Amino acid sequence: MKFKFSSASSSIKYSDRDDTALLYADFPCNVSALFTKNKVKAAPVKLSMERTNNKIQAILVNSGNANACTGQSGYETARKLAQKTAIGLKIDEESVLTASTGTIGIHLPAARIEKSIPVLVETLDENKITDFAKAIMTTDTVEKVEQISFSDEKNRYTMKAVAKGSGMIAPDMATLLVFIVCDAPIPKTTMDKIFKEIIDSTLNSLSIDGDMSTNDSAFLLCPSSGLTISEKTINEFEKSLKTILVNLSNKLIDDGEGATKRVTIEVKNAKTVDDAKKASRSIAESLLVKTALFGNDPNWGRVACAAGYSGADFDPDKMSISIGPYILFENGSVCVFNSSEVTKYISQQNYTITVILNAGEFSWKFLTSDISYEYVKINAEYTT
Amino acid sequence: MKFKFSSASSSIKYSDRDDTALLYADFPCNVSALFTKNKVKAAPVKLSMERTNNKIQAILVNSGNANACTGQSGYETARKLAQKTAIGLKIDEESVLTASTGTIGIHLPAARIEKSIPVLVETLDENKITDFAKAIMTTDTVEKVEQISFSDEKNRYTMKAVAKGSGMIAPDMATLLVFIVCDAPIPKTTMDKIFKEIIDSTLNSLSIDGDMSTNDSAFLLCPSSGLTISEKTINEFEKSLKTILVNLSNKLIDDGEGATKRVTIEVKNAKTVDDAKKASRSIAESLLVKTALFGNDPNWGRVACAAGYSGADFDPDKMSISIGPYILFENGSVCVFNSSEVTKYISQQNYTITVILNAGEFSWKFLTSDISYEYVKINAEYTT
Repeated sequence: MKFKFSSASSSIKYSDRDDTALLYADFPCNVSALFTKNKVKAAPVKLSMERTNNKIQAILVNSGNANACTGQSGYETARKLAQKTAIGLKIDEESVLTASTGTIGIHLPAARIEKSIPVLVETLDENKITDFAKAIMTTDTVEKVEQISFSDEKNRYTMKAVAKGSGMIAPDMATLLVFIVCDAPIPKTTMDKIFKEIIDSTLNSLSIDGDMSTNDSAFLLCPSSGLTISEKTINEFEKSLKTILVNLSNKLIDDGEGATKRVTIEVKNAKTVDDAKKASRSIAESLLVKTALFGNDPNWGRVACAAGYSGADFDPDKMSISIGPYILFENGSVCVFNSSEVTKYISQQNYTITVILNAGEFSWKFLTSDISYEYVKINAEYTT
Repeated sequence: MKFKFSSASSSIKYSDRDDTALLYADFPCNVSALFTKNKVKAAPVKLSMERTNNKIQAILVNSGNANACTGQSGYETARKLAQKTAIGLKIDEESVLTASTGTIGIHLPAARIEKSIPVLVETLDENKITDFAKAIMTTDTVEKVEQISFSDEKNRYTMKAVAKGSGMIAPDMATLLVFIVCDAPIPKTTMDKIFKEIIDSTLNSLSIDGDMSTNDSAFLLCPSSGLTISEKTINEFEKSLKTILVNLSNKLIDDGEGATKRVTIEVKNAKTVDDAKKASRSIAESLLVKTALFGNDPNWGRVACAAGYSGADFDPDKMSISIGPYILFENGSVCVFNSSEVTKYISQQNYTITVILNAGEFSWKFLTSDISYEYVKINAEYTT
């Protein structure tokens, strides 16, 4: 049972690098998949959504073009490319998924990608995951690959993961794509449950810029087998998946467009878990908070303000706010703090802002990056 | 019946300019007021909210300090300053409102402001509205004053308005404050209804950065009298108020932090008015759209994407998108357009992006600015 990877150049947008990639399993897999909730879904998302209950063996991916807002003909292109991939791999057409990332509203150069398929098929290799990761990058500055092993009573398993982009609920136009493969034969219902739960607290709890792409997709592939799986295997699988998704989340934030910081926003003692999510997300996505992070400005007032308009139910007079070990606002009262000491503390790259709502027992964490000049530059100059 | 204005320096944050201002009516007024929906409300907002059914004669305003997150003592300070103002003006304490704008979480220098009150009272003048407007500025680069006259069968009336800041639902930390006075004796219920309606389509339909301040307040003052008012007077009043708020909205966007553009996002043929609002607001607030506006990039895909995650109900395959006279996307299909011509068109400062959802009959317009390097600079460097 092997997972193989390859990449090729189709000159879709970038002419000096690979932009087409293939993931292949030499055995049928179950897939758990999560897709963008945007109403405007790219063609590859629509195609893959139809196939998540199939046994899957391959995913064809391209960068440089999102194949979004391309109508029925864009969908037909995605379907045709999946079909050509299936023919090349001698597998069932319905066992191929697709994913795209890049500019919206331009038709995919199908002929050039089709030409790359034989190359992709011929060069498949267990050790080419980094080539795969590089080929699917857009505004990413580094490829993002994770690998972890775990054992149960009898076997040793490997989990490998690739990601590109900036965030699931809040990704930039570059789209979040995640591919995770594991050779442990976890049942599909278990995969689905665990994948959704962990994604919620990792990829769905990070913010670069608050936009939600047309192409976001996360895939988890495990061998489809009738084998029964022990409790221990499932626990180890879950732990490994969590580790991989936490590591990928950190890498995604660190490589956020123009980002110079990775800051954890922790909201504690909210009335409901939904309130904790709302408040942490609102703070994490506030442009004023993000620019303050960039400016190393311990402007906790902007944090209080963003919590206030989040929709979470709490009494501002009971709220407390800390940055790292420094309490800046406690039970609704301004604290005396050494401003230059706090400024020095937040000049580091990673730290935590904690907001205690004192309204209940629920907590949530959200990862955020800062917004820098570089962010504006990248997004003012990208595309067309 | 006269409205008078004055300003003074209390060295709250700025030492080289006035930062305290007074608005005074030499007769009792009805007030219509709209305040921030943020849970974290500044002390002056709490105080003014309690007094909106009183007859009002004065509003004391300061810049440089928001008097927000300052707890009970912050509230007592606001109350005390209102009281001192009332004593100075020899009016009822309960007829004074307050408003503040500036940094959150710092106690107001009450003694210094108190010292300014006699100066404010002594220098009140019908013609000092510009001084008032200048004293309440924070990151604003120009003062914002409007004046208009209208007549009914018998009388000629004047409406004057001052604003500072960047937007009502989406203001920067600089806060939106609006003060409008008119010598037409409009009944309070009529004032309330008209003010709310017009604010909704003007100040509540513009976006600089998506943050909602702790201090946003808009006040409308008209003389309280038992006089009956003709239909014509009310119509003329409504027309004038609309003109003034449209003009102020344009000025607020044009002076948005770092803004170089004022773009109207018009969503047409939505299923409900709420869908039209959601979609236009989502596009207007998208960081990716805003950076594309700054970069003169006709990236309609980002517009489609932001409409898609807005929550509005529509079929993307029926959507059309235009920039000015150029149709870029029609009924779900990409259009051929002269890219350099469109790029030239959007290099101008003001234009409209129209999104037709083809899902119903409702429309909404939202004003937005671009996000520039300057925006990041201002907000990374502001405060503490």
